Amino acid sequence: MRKPRLMTPGPAPVPEDVLLELARPVIHHRSAEAKSVIIEVVAGLKDVFQTKNDIMILTASGTGAMEAAAVNTVPPGGKALILNAGWFSKRWGDICKAYGINAVMLDTEWGQPVDPDQVANALAQHKDTVAVMGTLSETSTGTGHPVEAIGKIVAGTEAVFAVDGISGVGAMECRADAWQIDLLAVGSQKALMLPPGLAFLSVSDKAWKKIDAFQSASYYFDLKKARKKMAEFDTPFTPAHTLLLGLKASLKRIREEGIENVWARHKRMSEAAQAGVQALGLELFSARPAEGLTAFRVPAGIKDSDIRGELEKRFGITTVGGQDKLKGKIVRVGHMGYMDELDVISGIAALEMVLSDLGMDIEPGRGVTAVQQVLIGSRALAAR
Amino acid sequence: MRKPRLMTPGPAPVPEDVLLELARPVIHHRSAEAKSVIIEVVAGLKDVFQTKNDIMILTASGTGAMEAAAVNTVPPGGKALILNAGWFSKRWGDICKAYGINAVMLDTEWGQPVDPDQVANALAQHKDTVAVMGTLSETSTGTGHPVEAIGKIVAGTEAVFAVDGISGVGAMECRADAWQIDLLAVGSQKALMLPPGLAFLSVSDKAWKKIDAFQSASYYFDLKKARKKMAEFDTPFTPAHTLLLGLKASLKRIREEGIENVWARHKRMSEAAQAGVQALGLELFSARPAEGLTAFRVPAGIKDSDIRGELEKRFGITTVGGQDKLKGKIVRVGHMGYMDELDVISGIAALEMVLSDLGMDIEPGRGVTAVQQVLIGSRALAAR
Repeated sequence: MRKPRLMTPGPAPVPEDVLLELARPVIHHRSAEAKSVIIEVVAGLKDVFQTKNDIMILTASGTGAMEAAAVNTVPPGGKALILNAGWFSKRWGDICKAYGINAVMLDTEWGQPVDPDQVANALAQHKDTVAVMGTLSETSTGTGHPVEAIGKIVAGTEAVFAVDGISGVGAMECRADAWQIDLLAVGSQKALMLPPGLAFLSVSDKAWKKIDAFQSASYYFDLKKARKKMAEFDTPFTPAHTLLLGLKASLKRIREEGIENVWARHKRMSEAAQAGVQALGLELFSARPAEGLTAFRVPAGIKDSDIRGELEKRFGITTVGGQDKLKGKIVRVGHMGYMDELDVISGIAALEMVLSDLGMDIEPGRGVTAVQQVLIGSRALAAR
Repeated sequence: MRKPRLMTPGPAPVPEDVLLELARPVIHHRSAEAKSVIIEVVAGLKDVFQTKNDIMILTASGTGAMEAAAVNTVPPGGKALILNAGWFSKRWGDICKAYGINAVMLDTEWGQPVDPDQVANALAQHKDTVAVMGTLSETSTGTGHPVEAIGKIVAGTEAVFAVDGISGVGAMECRADAWQIDLLAVGSQKALMLPPGLAFLSVSDKAWKKIDAFQSASYYFDLKKARKKMAEFDTPFTPAHTLLLGLKASLKRIREEGIENVWARHKRMSEAAQAGVQALGLELFSARPAEGLTAFRVPAGIKDSDIRGELEKRFGITTVGGQDKLKGKIVRVGHMGYMDELDVISGIAALEMVLSDLGMDIEPGRGVTAVQQVLIGSRALAAR
């Protein structure tokens, strides 16, 4: 028997009741029922984003929401400061370049968090920056960036702050309004517990002012058109309506758990996974781990494909390796969305057995014990 | 009891087995299993499109595939000839304008088919046309355009022929290669019997030459990037993978029925619906009806909202009204995808009863009899 366990940093597992929503007969996307779904999911998303700003629903991968944010706020030739610290933050730069935006790359070593002081310096140097584009959780390195501190700095300038929260929002604390995030992009297939296919973008008044100042090149990702339709609880083009029904169900779960509890669960799982990985003698890759995934360096003498292949073959666990320059160097394990403490214990237990089989000298139970110590500790802490 | 019946020209009903595929646990979109799904659906789509050309899978509404076709083949300042004959063909022009493409609008009265001779004349006048953009089935008017004849004309020029086949492909005969269609855009939620959320675009060698000649502005809809990934049975961004599983199931159905039989079924349903509507004393709106939907003029003295409202209230039948200048003037009834002869009979029977209630003088059974005459006739014809 092979029992599949999706432990990738997106897509993440989808709850059974949400999956069943996807199997409901299709309804027309401009019916009264469809409008009521949009009203409900927008309210739920605002709670998850912690924002009073408008939220646009796009039928696209998360990248579509990033493209919408970039191309609508910065005119061709305008300047964007890219907080480049991994594969996905680099994508902000690629999007800008495609549209003729002047992308100034502020490079941070992969695995390190962006330094807010460096952002302040760069903004002092580039006073004509229209938008700063960064990442909450850099999925390629498993790093959580200090978005709150950066938001404070950007808020003191004319620039807007666009954040790729695709694998971060819902998996770690993020308060769009309190942290002064003007554009927050999120995908459906991560902590929102849905299959891929929808993207969401919150837009602040400061961002709308930039958007209203010029006409963007993109037609499909035109935010002015999206705002007009969303005001009528509609979308400019036929949306992936089935996924909206699923979203309604997954947001209901988040509302019932409470977004702060959702963050706390992810934080607990993240700390537990980190402890487990380190107890197995592995080195965390990130200096400031994100809370929806854990990335560890591949130990000397073992191939990443052997670790991941054995996890898959023996335990049905899907993980991902490194991207680009991290290919073969790290393994990334997701613990976001529809995941609980026992999933983390299972994941570390499996990793322990696989590494042991691959010749690493590991005292049985060590990884799981470390995970449990964290989980028992945080429970005791919460009980006080 | 209210039994819902989706009779809109997209989204169209989804078969129960396809719906159940959507409820399967999510798998990773870069797994071996996911690649095998892409291999299978691309083969199935090629059969439906009747093409040997590449097919790109995009996570977007159908409009996304149109934008991809336009922005990748015609550089800013380049010329596109738009076969403007309705709400959706006008969209080709809007997309072009957003990207700075010089859109020459060849206007045809709504409800009339595009005249191939006029296309030939326009191309003789605009010899620098890079792309001709037209529509197979104009959903806003219920008109099927003579794509085969137009394809022949465009093929004799340097221009590529881009066709919006969103509500047409699978619902009426369309042979991309034989009809010399260079770019054929299709959405998932019409005759392909899926919920909305995926779009498909076939690309000919002639089109790839145009695409390779410059770098398009769009990042998300960059076809060069899509081609590279599709060659590895992958997509450039996380696809709406769940819908791909559903597509595999719906394409299996189409393969089993046979694409020519699928077309024949739609043709039969279309002719039957037209006969039924006319037998009720209603006037068809289109001079050359498309085969996936039937549009009729709202009779004098009755409001379209009364007809549609009663169909919905009494029989759970969802239809759509007119768009833009046709608002209140026509009603459009879909019969595409997961629909059979009895669905058409039900639809016409319901329309007959509703119109009778609204005060029209109709001899009971007249509409249904006309439908059955067509169906019995076409059956007898097929048996010969």
